[in-house]
Amino acid sequence: MTLQKKAIILLSGGIDSATTMAIARQMDFDAHALSFRYGQRNIVELEAASRVAQHFGVVKQLFVDINLRLFGGGALTADVDVPKNRDVAQMAKDIPITYVPARNTIFLSYALAWAEVLGSSDIFIGVNAVDYSGYPDCRPEYIAAFENMANLATRASVSGADRLKIHTPLIEMSKARIIQKGRELGVDFGLTFSCYDPNEYGLACGQCDSCLLRLKGFNEAGLEDPIKYVKYS
Amino acid sequence: MTLQKKAIILLSGGIDSATTMAIARQMDFDAHALSFRYGQRNIVELEAASRVAQHFGVVKQLFVDINLRLFGGGALTADVDVPKNRDVAQMAKDIPITYVPARNTIFLSYALAWAEVLGSSDIFIGVNAVDYSGYPDCRPEYIAAFENMANLATRASVSGADRLKIHTPLIEMSKARIIQKGRELGVDFGLTFSCYDPNEYGLACGQCDSCLLRLKGFNEAGLEDPIKYVKYS
Repeated sequence: MTLQKKAIILLSGGIDSATTMAIARQMDFDAHALSFRYGQRNIVELEAASRVAQHFGVVKQLFVDINLRLFGGGALTADVDVPKNRDVAQMAKDIPITYVPARNTIFLSYALAWAEVLGSSDIFIGVNAVDYSGYPDCRPEYIAAFENMANLATRASVSGADRLKIHTPLIEMSKARIIQKGRELGVDFGLTFSCYDPNEYGLACGQCDSCLLRLKGFNEAGLEDPIKYVKYS
Repeated sequence: MTLQKKAIILLSGGIDSATTMAIARQMDFDAHALSFRYGQRNIVELEAASRVAQHFGVVKQLFVDINLRLFGGGALTADVDVPKNRDVAQMAKDIPITYVPARNTIFLSYALAWAEVLGSSDIFIGVNAVDYSGYPDCRPEYIAAFENMANLATRASVSGADRLKIHTPLIEMSKARIIQKGRELGVDFGLTFSCYDPNEYGLACGQCDSCLLRLKGFNEAGLEDPIKYVKYS
């Protein structure tokens, strides 16, 4: 019997983090899911994160409360209308209104704290530089800089333990490729949720940036999205 | 009339952060104090942070709740006895039991989020590599790596705004020097608090690492510590 290595996987309950979880499990890591409550407008996303974690048999899932509303900025946490029906090509160029300041930096910092306590040297994050090129903290050079900093930040860095690695298996993949990869690895996308602005019954709007990218991805992958949308209901 | 530049100052209510605040004010920054509730055993430290912020006329002070207990590890947040009457020379070599995993990384990440929303490019942190050499996240090479990461993380980094700077004015100072510097700049150390393990009346224990370093600092600076200690009461 070999001792399995532990990994922390940032898990939002969307397609990208579900596929990232599947990749970490395929690499035979003991999965520790880290999810955040950060003043999202809806709780549907957190329920999806729980379902995905359960589906992949995680050792433990932690929910961390962080109040990014405190600082303002970003439609996901402030009282700004979520933009609808934008052009997908344009989304990739702009920094979106749904951008949350320093979000991945805060998420990865918490992951680093948990990794140190667990004795883990592997953190997985489903960032993607193709569809989300507008988010500065999804770029490969940002991830490399975080990894470098993390390796100077912790007790492990002093004791000479394994070098901490930030795994970004999706960083060069299109949404369609992520969906195909997830499908190959047994992800049930019916468990996931992506919408920034669901209705009162938790149905996805089908018009926000996140829904449009998701639908385009399924379309290009030649697959049907198993979740329900308001416009179809 | 010139527009003052805004700075974020991490403020715990101890000697180091109070002196750091004084330095930022002397440099004529509009001060924005960022303090954390992170499962400390006592609230006295937060009251000190409020007093110091008020004393220096900050524009705004925010308290962020972060639950580092969730991950375990570190006497300040877990149910471990705070060590007493340790040798000061030894403290500087060990990674102390009061070490909290990734604490400064999490603190600085929140500061980065606030800086981005405010349009500030200056963050002050009172880390010190002399008395706290056991803390990996107090070393100059760690701070430089965080600054490099931060400059790739944010919208400002894409738009070409001012480069973000992490100011660490105390990093090479002894505790005695920090106290002298604070005194020169008008810090009232009677407002500050350092103890890891105060009694039920909020009096400092005089025996934990933090009290011992503080008392040694005042002694070497040739000044009297204005706060009360249990052993004197």
